[in-house]
Amino acid sequence: MNNDTICALATANGIGALGIIRVSGNEALSVVQKSFPAKNLEKQKSHTIHYGYFMDEEEAIDEVMLSIFLAPKSFTTENSVEIAFHGSPHIGKRILETLIKNGARMAKAGEFTLRAFINGRIDLSQAEAIADVIASENEASRKVAINQLKGGITNEISVLRTDLLNFVSLIELELDFAEEDVEFADRSALSGLLDKIEVKLNSLIESFQYGNAIKNGTAVAIIGKPNAGKSTLLNSLLKEERAIVSNIAGTTRDTIEEVLHIKGNAFRLIDTAGLRETMDEIEAIGVKKAKEKVENANILVYLADAATEDFSEDIEMIQSLLREDLKLIICATKIDEVIPTQYEMVENIFREAISHEFDFIKISAVENQNIQDLKNELSSYVEHLKTEENNVVITNQRHFEALKKSMDAVHKVKEAISFQISTELLAYELRNALEHLGEISGEVTNDEVLGNIFSKFCIGK
Amino acid sequence: MNNDTICALATANGIGALGIIRVSGNEALSVVQKSFPAKNLEKQKSHTIHYGYFMDEEEAIDEVMLSIFLAPKSFTTENSVEIAFHGSPHIGKRILETLIKNGARMAKAGEFTLRAFINGRIDLSQAEAIADVIASENEASRKVAINQLKGGITNEISVLRTDLLNFVSLIELELDFAEEDVEFADRSALSGLLDKIEVKLNSLIESFQYGNAIKNGTAVAIIGKPNAGKSTLLNSLLKEERAIVSNIAGTTRDTIEEVLHIKGNAFRLIDTAGLRETMDEIEAIGVKKAKEKVENANILVYLADAATEDFSEDIEMIQSLLREDLKLIICATKIDEVIPTQYEMVENIFREAISHEFDFIKISAVENQNIQDLKNELSSYVEHLKTEENNVVITNQRHFEALKKSMDAVHKVKEAISFQISTELLAYELRNALEHLGEISGEVTNDEVLGNIFSKFCIGK
Repeated sequence: MNNDTICALATANGIGALGIIRVSGNEALSVVQKSFPAKNLEKQKSHTIHYGYFMDEEEAIDEVMLSIFLAPKSFTTENSVEIAFHGSPHIGKRILETLIKNGARMAKAGEFTLRAFINGRIDLSQAEAIADVIASENEASRKVAINQLKGGITNEISVLRTDLLNFVSLIELELDFAEEDVEFADRSALSGLLDKIEVKLNSLIESFQYGNAIKNGTAVAIIGKPNAGKSTLLNSLLKEERAIVSNIAGTTRDTIEEVLHIKGNAFRLIDTAGLRETMDEIEAIGVKKAKEKVENANILVYLADAATEDFSEDIEMIQSLLREDLKLIICATKIDEVIPTQYEMVENIFREAISHEFDFIKISAVENQNIQDLKNELSSYVEHLKTEENNVVITNQRHFEALKKSMDAVHKVKEAISFQISTELLAYELRNALEHLGEISGEVTNDEVLGNIFSKFCIGK
Repeated sequence: MNNDTICALATANGIGALGIIRVSGNEALSVVQKSFPAKNLEKQKSHTIHYGYFMDEEEAIDEVMLSIFLAPKSFTTENSVEIAFHGSPHIGKRILETLIKNGARMAKAGEFTLRAFINGRIDLSQAEAIADVIASENEASRKVAINQLKGGITNEISVLRTDLLNFVSLIELELDFAEEDVEFADRSALSGLLDKIEVKLNSLIESFQYGNAIKNGTAVAIIGKPNAGKSTLLNSLLKEERAIVSNIAGTTRDTIEEVLHIKGNAFRLIDTAGLRETMDEIEAIGVKKAKEKVENANILVYLADAATEDFSEDIEMIQSLLREDLKLIICATKIDEVIPTQYEMVENIFREAISHEFDFIKISAVENQNIQDLKNELSSYVEHLKTEENNVVITNQRHFEALKKSMDAVHKVKEAISFQISTELLAYELRNALEHLGEISGEVTNDEVLGNIFSKFCIGK
């Protein structure tokens, strides 16, 4: 295994009070020692912090604090040093240059985490979880990522995989005694286990829709005729959001743009910048453009002006936009301008014309009335995606693919059993299922897969 | 003194592998303990690191590493904890919210450093040096800031101040015995000390011009007639720069724009974005605009096309732009198109017409020929600003003002001695000089000055 010494900036790029440079590898201590005369690093205990100047030969680069982590008690399981410096990007660059001169090399993207995986400190789904934790932008995605980091997915799967592995051993034993026609593996017990695995896989696969909503947010298209109150609605939805995100100075991103958080879930408002610029967008760009927007949406919020009398255009528009898997919310706007009976009449008109299931909400964005109802509806869409029996949620496309392949393999094994095909073939199909299940935790893997996963990491992780 | 517990993000804003949140104050340990069940923090030694989950009540927010610094061995001299988390801004926000719930409050800008100053760990010029180190964008500014952080300026001044303080004591003793007309303080020894102080102050004050060039860069205006080769020159100057800054991935800023570094010094090319867009800028916007640009410049690089024959317009332009304190470099461009004798003739024409001192450089940006000569000329401008007798360089406007006031006060004391005015008045002027000298290190200060200094810090420092 290659344990050469790597270094990289671990903190975000830019000016801060502190920056951290990570160094890891066989020579981590001696590489840093060349620039840190203040103390003998070899003599220091793990998990201790040391003050001094970081030197490039005779020149003091910066006053730093070193954190020392000795193998195997470090993130990578190798000797590691973290150098905390005054957070000027220029100083970070000078320190890295000096470390490279001292014998380290720049880490590749994700290389620290790759080493943690290769050295057995974490499994592959945990390595992926680290990237997800770092990228998490809201409570829902953070929670799922932290759960995965704790080993949630692997635990769920590895129990099943171990049971299956036992059967494979027995069946392969049968192959050794093929001529004697014995059955070590109880076929009905195997079927029972496969049923259990199938249920579990199914629940994990189903959780992916929810996982995807958590990780990438739920796409919401807001459509309506000119003057239906779109711009006002967007403003009141997003104004509050902007207030929330600027709550604690220095901790949030500069621009949140058009992402709305409700109960920790993210909702991406599709192309709302354009929507807000032009009130009469549908008139201007027509049904085609509206369709394009709704195409990528999970939810269509359609605004209908309750104060008008003819809804035929609205109904036509909605029907042209509908899709089997689209959640439809019709909002009767400007209800402050109409009497309750008219509002009820409006709802009836839509109920009669549209067969697709929908929620009907009365709304008056001007008075901020019932905006909460709309938020609750949006939120409930995500909540309903949760599968009840399952705490573990799949958010990762790679895991989803591996689970589906495992499921296919399980089906084939079941078929093989029911058709009583040869033990050889049964063993083959079982091995196949085991392999796909093992892909998630990285028990089965290859360089290409690893390359794919870790190249998406940021440098320094 | 107020030692309530403060917290803030210490690393740069944005996504990174790691983020650090700093907590400092009397209750730092107990505030963090509420969210860190893994270990009993009170029982841990200073300068140790601890792994565990950061909790908001029952909920795991993130896997973190805590660094513990016990009073007085911390930056602020108070109990302090640094929380290293997976660098998602969302998680940083959640941790800060939880810390606030636990009893901390958000730190104000510079509040950690303010505490380090108030608690006597660093003096005021060192506190300012920390901000300068963090903001340093090149070698020259980093070096000066690190030297100041080490106490360079204070050391230079405090020796003089201590000597002066002795005299003040003696003179004030004379006041107690005023009726007996004794002289405890040897006036000629005092005059000798004042001369020494004057020399030192003078050298520090003179270093400010260099310090300013280091800290803010040297402003360079590049002017020339259409087709004089401005655009080509800028490109070859900046192309190399861009290559240098992108040398080590992940450590430099996204855009350097039009700043050029030569031998660790920064040169700001004034308004070059515009210059590069339009080749015939002088024709378009006239002499007025060129004057505006040169007004803020330290150096004027004037490009004259050596292949033309009439330089009267160039000479007129240069003369209209000249200023006493402006360094002038005339570059004869396109010298690849002319024979050596013509080039010499061009130099003679300018030498005869322009009485202001200038350097004459032949240049062919197309072939990158002699670009280095121009760089050397620019570089030598900054090098010449260095005062030889002085290692300490003043970069801070506040220090500069205090030094000038000290100098004025010293002059008044000298006057007082030579006119043999009353001991009372002499004591008063000496106190005045002491006070201004003490302002630099913060031995003499007030809340307004402190407020001014620390409000310019970033939060988390």
